[in-house]
Amino acid sequence: MSVRVGVLGASGYTACEAIRLLHRHPSAEVVLATSRAGGGRRVSDAHPSLRGVCDLELVEADPSRICEACDVVFSCLPHGASAAIVRPIADLGVRVVDLSADYRLGDAGVYEAWYGVAHPDPERLGRVPYGLCEFFRDQIRGASIVANPGCYPTAALLATLPLVRSGMLDASSLVIDAKSGISGAGRTLSEATHFVEANERVAAYKIGTHRHTPEIARVLELGGGASGGPAAFVPHLVPMTRGLLATCYGRVGEGVTEEDALVCLQDAYADEPFVRVVEAPSTRHVLHTNFCDVTVRRVGELLVAIGVIDNLGKGASSAAVQNMNAMLGLDETTGL
Amino acid sequence: MSVRVGVLGASGYTACEAIRLLHRHPSAEVVLATSRAGGGRRVSDAHPSLRGVCDLELVEADPSRICEACDVVFSCLPHGASAAIVRPIADLGVRVVDLSADYRLGDAGVYEAWYGVAHPDPERLGRVPYGLCEFFRDQIRGASIVANPGCYPTAALLATLPLVRSGMLDASSLVIDAKSGISGAGRTLSEATHFVEANERVAAYKIGTHRHTPEIARVLELGGGASGGPAAFVPHLVPMTRGLLATCYGRVGEGVTEEDALVCLQDAYADEPFVRVVEAPSTRHVLHTNFCDVTVRRVGELLVAIGVIDNLGKGASSAAVQNMNAMLGLDETTGL
Amino acid sequence: MSVRVGVLGASGYTACEAIRLLHRHPSAEVVLATSRAGGGRRVSDAHPSLRGVCDLELVEADPSRICEACDVVFSCLPHGASAAIVRPIADLGVRVVDLSADYRLGDAGVYEAWYGVAHPDPERLGRVPYGLCEFFRDQIRGASIVANPGCYPTAALLATLPLVRSGMLDASSLVIDAKSGISGAGRTLSEATHFVEANERVAAYKIGTHRHTPEIARVLELGGGASGGPAAFVPHLVPMTRGLLATCYGRVGEGVTEEDALVCLQDAYADEPFVRVVEAPSTRHVLHTNFCDVTVRRVGELLVAIGVIDNLGKGASSAAVQNMNAMLGLDETTGL
Amino acid sequence: MSVRVGVLGASGYTACEAIRLLHRHPSAEVVLATSRAGGGRRVSDAHPSLRGVCDLELVEADPSRICEACDVVFSCLPHGASAAIVRPIADLGVRVVDLSADYRLGDAGVYEAWYGVAHPDPERLGRVPYGLCEFFRDQIRGASIVANPGCYPTAALLATLPLVRSGMLDASSLVIDAKSGISGAGRTLSEATHFVEANERVAAYKIGTHRHTPEIARVLELGGGASGGPAAFVPHLVPMTRGLLATCYGRVGEGVTEEDALVCLQDAYADEPFVRVVEAPSTRHVLHTNFCDVTVRRVGELLVAIGVIDNLGKGASSAAVQNMNAMLGLDETTGL
Repeated sequence: MSVRVGVLGASGYTACEAIRLLHRHPSAEVVLATSRAGGGRRVSDAHPSLRGVCDLELVEADPSRICEACDVVFSCLPHGASAAIVRPIADLGVRVVDLSADYRLGDAGVYEAWYGVAHPDPERLGRVPYGLCEFFRDQIRGASIVANPGCYPTAALLATLPLVRSGMLDASSLVIDAKSGISGAGRTLSEATHFVEANERVAAYKIGTHRHTPEIARVLELGGGASGGPAAFVPHLVPMTRGLLATCYGRVGEGVTEEDALVCLQDAYADEPFVRVVEAPSTRHVLHTNFCDVTVRRVGELLVAIGVIDNLGKGASSAAVQNMNAMLGLDETTGL
Repeated sequence: MSVRVGVLGASGYTACEAIRLLHRHPSAEVVLATSRAGGGRRVSDAHPSLRGVCDLELVEADPSRICEACDVVFSCLPHGASAAIVRPIADLGVRVVDLSADYRLGDAGVYEAWYGVAHPDPERLGRVPYGLCEFFRDQIRGASIVANPGCYPTAALLATLPLVRSGMLDASSLVIDAKSGISGAGRTLSEATHFVEANERVAAYKIGTHRHTPEIARVLELGGGASGGPAAFVPHLVPMTRGLLATCYGRVGEGVTEEDALVCLQDAYADEPFVRVVEAPSTRHVLHTNFCDVTVRRVGELLVAIGVIDNLGKGASSAAVQNMNAMLGLDETTGL
Repeated sequence: MSVRVGVLGASGYTACEAIRLLHRHPSAEVVLATSRAGGGRRVSDAHPSLRGVCDLELVEADPSRICEACDVVFSCLPHGASAAIVRPIADLGVRVVDLSADYRLGDAGVYEAWYGVAHPDPERLGRVPYGLCEFFRDQIRGASIVANPGCYPTAALLATLPLVRSGMLDASSLVIDAKSGISGAGRTLSEATHFVEANERVAAYKIGTHRHTPEIARVLELGGGASGGPAAFVPHLVPMTRGLLATCYGRVGEGVTEEDALVCLQDAYADEPFVRVVEAPSTRHVLHTNFCDVTVRRVGELLVAIGVIDNLGKGASSAAVQNMNAMLGLDETTGL
Repeated sequence: MSVRVGVLGASGYTACEAIRLLHRHPSAEVVLATSRAGGGRRVSDAHPSLRGVCDLELVEADPSRICEACDVVFSCLPHGASAAIVRPIADLGVRVVDLSADYRLGDAGVYEAWYGVAHPDPERLGRVPYGLCEFFRDQIRGASIVANPGCYPTAALLATLPLVRSGMLDASSLVIDAKSGISGAGRTLSEATHFVEANERVAAYKIGTHRHTPEIARVLELGGGASGGPAAFVPHLVPMTRGLLATCYGRVGEGVTEEDALVCLQDAYADEPFVRVVEAPSTRHVLHTNFCDVTVRRVGELLVAIGVIDNLGKGASSAAVQNMNAMLGLDETTGL
């Protein structure tokens, strides 16, 4: 018997990837897809690569209809729009993996400060588990909503959290310099993502002001870091479709060797199916997978921890499938 | 004493390249740049790469003001809009290199059939020289308007015209399969030029319906071909910023060897500064230059002639500078 | 019960892709991988992306050991080397999908003329089915060896063969202009595939001399074409990792309309799981899949048929899995 | 009267770019080019883009012949090989711009520690000016040898040195995270620069061990920093041909605002023709130029300073031309 999955906001890149993965999943089936596009358009009109894979008609997002049709919902809607519809769906008892940012922060005030709008479902904030299975598996199992992590936090946290928790790395000193492929900027047209502008170019953006900053801060705090937030988080766009690398610099704990730090990561991930401690992480090695490859070096008084993911894989859609598996009590690797 | 140049439609890619080249030109100076953007915006706001190179304010395109300020005008406006303003400028005696398609065809009816609008300056059609110096130099020298060729015709014609004129290649049988970088599609945002869509992709477009078709047909006819047009012209977009390659297949004349065809090209271009007959044309070898590299092979009963250019160089802006030089009686290579 | 698969020549790109696909296959398992590298090196040392997916040690290719361990062998060896080892393996009764060119031609003389070496297993030539399931399914079912098609022939033949067989397209007039991503050139280092040389470049290569030419000719003949070979086949490299597009031009049959030709393709592929007749084929839509998307247009007296594939997917490794499925009587789509 | 320039090691990418620039230079002419290739090969055989631009025969590097023919020599040889030949050339009184690393460090011991070989010309070490005109112009004017800076140091130092010298930024706390196009890795074939490996990939390399580290340290010290070196320097390769961005993080001085830091950069570069203080540096805006664009932000207790260059332009060959101009008393912008 298949889990019936609905995908909200099905015309974007994360939805396309989620539908592709769910099509391969032995115990799930996409039964409904929503989009404002409507008008008889099908999933495969929005995503020609899915022709013959998913030709469902795109429908309006009606909560009661969704809840009747689906056991689980993936919300690929933008922040704000997502919680507005996730709220009634969750109230009706249908499980939700929210790929938007809406349930990642613990506090409505922080949300409003960073996102510029009031949160549509403030009561639930702080009670929704953060969907990084490697650290929050116990809360995710059986949860009714899971906040699927942002792409940058996924890479940065998987590279550093074991080091921070063990006291080897000072979270408050963390400088996170991240490099992402252009699909992270979504499907909306913009000059920055016009091929001629984006190709053969590297540039930083949202220096110190990217919305993943408070998300990273929150998890580092949960992880036991003293002051919480990173000292600086600076994302960059690089000319490739997919892939994300986070280089994280922080003060090393006294007496901690490079070997200590490596062993810490190896121990933390010894039983994890999707985190590999490697010599030389490269985004190419994790493309189209749910893997995160990590490593760490000591340089002077700093630890340099690196994590790589596919931003549409472990940074979004395959992580969402892993979360669905965990919520439903399936083996987390099913279909991945 | 410097030639005073005005650039119309200065916010696009061909204008950016023209301004960069004219800045290096020892006898020319950009003195005026127009754009609808206006509002105090400068050329270097539209093109940050030109900061410190050209910081002129972008002004409205007023014909009398343009004619007062400029000796020569480069029109980088879209077709239709270009002839509408070129007409009064040319009437006032200022020289124009028109980078749009407006003066490339010889007949207002053909223009309307392909461009879907009435031509704004039909009387001049057919009397404006086609700005391929290698073949129409005599008409270009001293001309008041020159129709700067399209990028696809430039590569295809330079590769084939000597062969067609000599009877070695049958123009009516020509299949032109062309591959262009994305900058050929201009600066206007579109899904097809969104990085994630355009990267790691090859696709044909406007199969048999591209507007450069009648332009190629016209010149091949002038060149003596029997029926004129190519049998088929199919452009493709490939994931690179600049560069264009045209592979041209046509019936070989009786008894013509590969060696004959090569010698024909070598003879035709022996004194040309910007056409090189080479062994293996590659777009990379002509990037950021005014060169066109060509070659030819015999395969069975066909000749395969290949031409490569930088679509923003010999395919647009550096060709425009070469045309300006020729119009003014300067050495064609000046500043190139 | 799993089919036990051995992969010969496991350090190249097609092997990497085959291993990845077989890992997902519900009824197959990679149990052995060979490479000259040896010395304790593992598959995941050669392909870091496969760490945790396939960590088998790379061993020498010993026929009897292979036959003991495997039910099916994928040979990813270079031509010449492949048949030399496939021969004893097949003699011992183990099934082989040969991804090299060795069994694709029907005649040892033609092979030697194009490949420059004597064929190591000439007796089998002409009796090994050509692994294009869409046309040779009946011969593939139950076969002991299948010749997995070349990437260029796959795209060109799927786009044109139904049209040729129905008499709508004249095979002898075919001009095939193909564009491939760089992975088609394999993993061996060369100047042409050095990033700085290959990036931002389009170039033709092996004009009229590519070894896929006789392979295309052979199948077109089988398909009923009069004279067999294409008039010209010219491959180009474009700056992307994966993907291949073939644009095929040929004389249209008398009275044949574009609609007729489209219907012909639609009818031919109505029941095929992996060929989609689409409006606008794009390599991006078939990346990492076993799909081939095709279309056809009429331009003047020509048909222009286009096929796109992932050169490492339907052009190599996923086609090999489809062939294995067909040989073993499994559903062809299993694991794909 | 033209300056006669010789280019040593003419088959690499920096040499190609230097020759292209010198060809455009109004007072210089390339008269000699050396390479081990030899055998009648020409510059344009090594660099097909230079056909018709520079067709000099490649000759052996013979010091006395070089000194007879040239007024200035650009050495594009690898480290070690460079100083071995620069030494006799400089002894004979010919001026040298050394694009290798050989004269960038001040101490033969440090050189040997980082480069693993004894320095071939230790007596000159420490007396050769560092060719960053913006800071060492007085020493460069009239110098007989200039050490052309490394690409990473150029971007990092131009972004930070005014801030360090003014005490606004603590040099000892500097974390430099740099991203370079692949041409920085040179023309030698390697797996890391094979297109399929390098495309669609970001990866760090030589974490804390890159040879530009002591070069940055030396200049920061000269600039007045307390302890000298950066806390960490980590370079990354990104999939583009040219372009380099350095993101530099360091402790902000007490009471220093973002505005203070910006004004500091603006003041430092007010009269510099090739450094632009901009809002949003992008490598694309400096491609094929000698510009370095810089900016600075304050994030918490850190300053984040960013510099972008073309690694083959201001990071190598156009900087070498600027240095030559300065050495000879020409306007530094000549030909650039």
